[in-house]
Amino acid sequence: MDNRYAIILAAGQGKRMKSSKPKVLHTVCGKPMVSHVVDQVQAANFAQTAVVVGHEGAEVQKVLGDEVSFVWQNERLGTGHAVKQAKPLLGDKKGTTLVISADTPMISAVTMQDLSDHHEHSGAKATVLTARVDDPTGLGRVIRDPETGEVQKIVEHKDASAKERGISEINTATYCIDNEALFSALQEVTNDNAQEEYYLPDVIEILKARGEKISAWETPDAAEALGINDRVALADAEKTMQRRINEYWMKQGVTFVDPDHTYVSVDTELGADTTIYPGTMLRGQTVIGEGCEIGPHSDITDSRVVDFTTIKQSTVSASVIGEHVHIGPFAHIRPDSSIAQGAKVGNFVEIKNTEVGKGSKANHLSYIGDAELGEDVNLGCGAITVNYDGKEKHVTTIEDGAFIGCNANLVAPVTIGQNSFVAAGSTITDDVPGESLSIARARQTNKDGYLKEK
Amino acid sequence: MDNRYAIILAAGQGKRMKSSKPKVLHTVCGKPMVSHVVDQVQAANFAQTAVVVGHEGAEVQKVLGDEVSFVWQNERLGTGHAVKQAKPLLGDKKGTTLVISADTPMISAVTMQDLSDHHEHSGAKATVLTARVDDPTGLGRVIRDPETGEVQKIVEHKDASAKERGISEINTATYCIDNEALFSALQEVTNDNAQEEYYLPDVIEILKARGEKISAWETPDAAEALGINDRVALADAEKTMQRRINEYWMKQGVTFVDPDHTYVSVDTELGADTTIYPGTMLRGQTVIGEGCEIGPHSDITDSRVVDFTTIKQSTVSASVIGEHVHIGPFAHIRPDSSIAQGAKVGNFVEIKNTEVGKGSKANHLSYIGDAELGEDVNLGCGAITVNYDGKEKHVTTIEDGAFIGCNANLVAPVTIGQNSFVAAGSTITDDVPGESLSIARARQTNKDGYLKEK
Amino acid sequence: MDNRYAIILAAGQGKRMKSSKPKVLHTVCGKPMVSHVVDQVQAANFAQTAVVVGHEGAEVQKVLGDEVSFVWQNERLGTGHAVKQAKPLLGDKKGTTLVISADTPMISAVTMQDLSDHHEHSGAKATVLTARVDDPTGLGRVIRDPETGEVQKIVEHKDASAKERGISEINTATYCIDNEALFSALQEVTNDNAQEEYYLPDVIEILKARGEKISAWETPDAAEALGINDRVALADAEKTMQRRINEYWMKQGVTFVDPDHTYVSVDTELGADTTIYPGTMLRGQTVIGEGCEIGPHSDITDSRVVDFTTIKQSTVSASVIGEHVHIGPFAHIRPDSSIAQGAKVGNFVEIKNTEVGKGSKANHLSYIGDAELGEDVNLGCGAITVNYDGKEKHVTTIEDGAFIGCNANLVAPVTIGQNSFVAAGSTITDDVPGESLSIARARQTNKDGYLKEK
Repeated sequence: MDNRYAIILAAGQGKRMKSSKPKVLHTVCGKPMVSHVVDQVQAANFAQTAVVVGHEGAEVQKVLGDEVSFVWQNERLGTGHAVKQAKPLLGDKKGTTLVISADTPMISAVTMQDLSDHHEHSGAKATVLTARVDDPTGLGRVIRDPETGEVQKIVEHKDASAKERGISEINTATYCIDNEALFSALQEVTNDNAQEEYYLPDVIEILKARGEKISAWETPDAAEALGINDRVALADAEKTMQRRINEYWMKQGVTFVDPDHTYVSVDTELGADTTIYPGTMLRGQTVIGEGCEIGPHSDITDSRVVDFTTIKQSTVSASVIGEHVHIGPFAHIRPDSSIAQGAKVGNFVEIKNTEVGKGSKANHLSYIGDAELGEDVNLGCGAITVNYDGKEKHVTTIEDGAFIGCNANLVAPVTIGQNSFVAAGSTITDDVPGESLSIARARQTNKDGYLKEK
Repeated sequence: MDNRYAIILAAGQGKRMKSSKPKVLHTVCGKPMVSHVVDQVQAANFAQTAVVVGHEGAEVQKVLGDEVSFVWQNERLGTGHAVKQAKPLLGDKKGTTLVISADTPMISAVTMQDLSDHHEHSGAKATVLTARVDDPTGLGRVIRDPETGEVQKIVEHKDASAKERGISEINTATYCIDNEALFSALQEVTNDNAQEEYYLPDVIEILKARGEKISAWETPDAAEALGINDRVALADAEKTMQRRINEYWMKQGVTFVDPDHTYVSVDTELGADTTIYPGTMLRGQTVIGEGCEIGPHSDITDSRVVDFTTIKQSTVSASVIGEHVHIGPFAHIRPDSSIAQGAKVGNFVEIKNTEVGKGSKANHLSYIGDAELGEDVNLGCGAITVNYDGKEKHVTTIEDGAFIGCNANLVAPVTIGQNSFVAAGSTITDDVPGESLSIARARQTNKDGYLKEK
Repeated sequence: MDNRYAIILAAGQGKRMKSSKPKVLHTVCGKPMVSHVVDQVQAANFAQTAVVVGHEGAEVQKVLGDEVSFVWQNERLGTGHAVKQAKPLLGDKKGTTLVISADTPMISAVTMQDLSDHHEHSGAKATVLTARVDDPTGLGRVIRDPETGEVQKIVEHKDASAKERGISEINTATYCIDNEALFSALQEVTNDNAQEEYYLPDVIEILKARGEKISAWETPDAAEALGINDRVALADAEKTMQRRINEYWMKQGVTFVDPDHTYVSVDTELGADTTIYPGTMLRGQTVIGEGCEIGPHSDITDSRVVDFTTIKQSTVSASVIGEHVHIGPFAHIRPDSSIAQGAKVGNFVEIKNTEVGKGSKANHLSYIGDAELGEDVNLGCGAITVNYDGKEKHVTTIEDGAFIGCNANLVAPVTIGQNSFVAAGSTITDDVPGESLSIARARQTNKDGYLKEK
């Protein structure tokens, strides 16, 4: 929208978080709070967005990158002062400005748009986003004119009369304000109060005093307005958002055996008829196909898993897993791996920076790093790639159909030829030609009755 | 009961499940919904049960086997049409017919019996199973005569008056109907409605119009009547049933550290003074004895675990674990294994199709497959059975008291004799006689100062 | 307080627990119920504490040690009889006696003190600790004088009138009683009732009949008064206490991704900016520093973890983990280990009774037991210590900078010198001097085309 702007307040420290990290960088469902707000603002298609940064502002900038404009609040002098810092950027615009705190990560783009639409149709100079809550204790109440529904005043809990305290409609601290009115009123806001801070809500009072109309729009979903001030609230927001994500996917045809104990990031995608077992975490940009069985207790980050694949009690990072693959239990797929169709990675197997070809198997107690496995390779139990010589990493190549015996060491760089066979217990330091048998072990000697004599 | 019958409606696709699998085959606590209903119907001891199948009916038949009679609904023309398909099987019976949907897996045999008893004592031609719910929005209300308590009508939410919407007693869509009245009324049901479907509830209206008495019986447990239409409801049912299963076992003397996060199938049995730690799944036909400690995060399927055994962070399938056994953390017992009294299976150990004798130990990083271990065998760390030569699987036999050194490979078929000792790092290809020392490794050479020179 | 005493009733069997263990030894958040009560009584600083033991009393004594005095109730003749057994110990004291059941593990020292303070200021001879609950069904109601607030009587649910049943203030069965009045009234308590038991609440009636004032003090936190009679209540108490523990730590600056599924013992301490992932258990006397990432699904007991350390999907017992250490996924640190700063313990690695020096690495599939590793040691994949010869355990020493090749066996007792290099696949039985290369393996032979011919 050409004449809609957003100011996101992200300058605070958030003392009650008791953190060395600024509050707005704490994550909900895997994404920093401020990024949730920025993503929704961008989805709501505002013409320009200013993020006010201050405490550890460089950290916030690093997270947000160049998607938004930043303005600095170098002293923490209150929310009114924070908004005022955006004046050089937005002060001469005509239109509507959404002012929102970066600590309300649940607000959706739709709510932002509905609020803005209501504001513009209402003819008000400012519109307060309100919510009805069961227990408004401690929160600012919105007092409306009983006839017009317009806002008469916003009263802090501590200043509210008994009757006002009976009101369950609270100020969420998100506002839509006519941009010119906003910056003009900010000129009049003073810090003449106990905290010596410039408060944003004073703008509402100032506009009211000027005889302007103040409107309010109640969000149909009070949970969206939850502001996060400590880690108890953070955990509550996580739970609420997680429930929404999981319900969304259940409605798309994904089975969650226990949605209360399944952790799916906002950026994960899931295919129909996939079942997610309890304790599973799907993080970052993960995509799971159809008909998969994931978990229990699998932990998958930034990976793509194609259809009909099973991943039990295993961890996978930054890798691609093909269709009809079986992984786990207790396997670990590290970054930059790809496991092709029909392959198996069994218990106590680690794969790192490796391509595993179609139908290949590493079923037990192996480590495969910096390797390329062809199709239908069979790695015996305990077979490993010796990819590190203490100084550098080297590559192991195992061609199609090769069979690597149990507890064999493949000392890289080394190539095991097609359909060759490495005997159990061998340490292979030289290339093995195709169709060959390679063996490197000592003969067995039995000292009969040795232990009897002893 | 000789004159009681049941018709289970299992023909629907369940579009809102968004699944390639018919709705009634989706599982709750490890058992398909339709199997829950069939099991309870059978426990309620009806004379004959007809399951109406349609969408992917062959799949449903495969799951249910020959425990019930099937009738086919080849076209999906409504619930009335579905019931009518049972006419060839039940049409000429005298007595009471329970009509129930296969998507209500929570209804118990006791409720079915109580409903039938009420029906027969009431003198009504049909009895509706009702429930009182907090939020009846969207559900059909049961309007009773305020004096007699008889049913006046059932009204869909969309057709209900404001007063009727205030009624919290809803139609669960389970009915007991006089069998003759049922099939006679079905003759009159038409598809003269927006969906062009034959609706079962029309039977109630037709009987009412005939002047018959219609009764209602309210289940004391509304959760039982939950019908499942999408995977959100499926997850809710899972949670409710899981809570019941876990409460049952807690009352039998089993400790659940976190019953909200412990998954126990309906067919699992647990002994007193056993403790189940969080994240544990007990699936299928699993039996755990007394005084065991299971979990956290163990995953046990179709297995029997005897008393005083510990299974930590491990998976077990289709195996028998004796008493005073210690398993885990991070062990994997695959099917057809038995672990005898006092044995230990430690971390990163996989056991498959193997008998482990009393007091034997495989404590670290082993794979034991297709093997028979006697008593008091000690497998060193990394000792493994080489049971597969690329073509066939072979058997390893380790007799009583044998000691297998670390990282030894036992290349099957091979027998390690009683009280013998296999040296660490040996690959054993030939049998080792009892009381013998067997060694197969190269001598150590130290190149002194080699790295200094380099 | 010099004139305050406590009698803790811990003699019952707790039949509804269905346990071979006395009820009061069942644990809540890792600590036996009776220990919770004793700990809080001690924190409340009473002059003397008597624990009445009976059923399996020796077990209870063993758990509590010599922190308290014990009196025996050899026959189970009711709560009044139980308290009376403390007469030899406390009968001649002047002051206030708290009588509390050991099955109410949630009551805090503060509540005990507030109750005692109220009692002493009230001038009453006895004060009942009460609570208001949503559903008082089955519980004894406290009937107060509407004007004075004094207790008129306590009435059991079954004896209560409809009006009395409407009262939601219940008797928690914890009392403060003037010590002389207590023992004098106990003389008059009879077993003239259906159960033929001597009931403690009769003391209240007797004092009332004497014309004494009986007071009541309502706990502000009804959950504290929860008495535990079966394992369902035990699980509820666990959940309530766990939520409190987790909220406490969240407010101290610890992030819990899912506090409903994170298990932290009462004796655990956590540093700010540490994140605990779901499914994690922190047991016993565990201390975690600042900026750590623990879990998901880690299980840590009686261990100390310094700052900025990561422990993923791993178990740790009775060990010390330094700062900036990475552990897991799927590692197992057994007792008496210490892992120094910057070290790494990777997947499928077991460490037991071992010191790992700064910056050393055991990244894959190793077992290190009874060993001492210097700094910057590198253990290749599958490298293990052979610490057990079938009779005794021996020590392995690996000096600074040594590099142990993959699948190497170090047969203890053995020392690997500084900066030496053990070749992959070697079984090392003799010491390796510093700066040396040690090798013990057979040469590789390739039988070219062997498999083609076959």
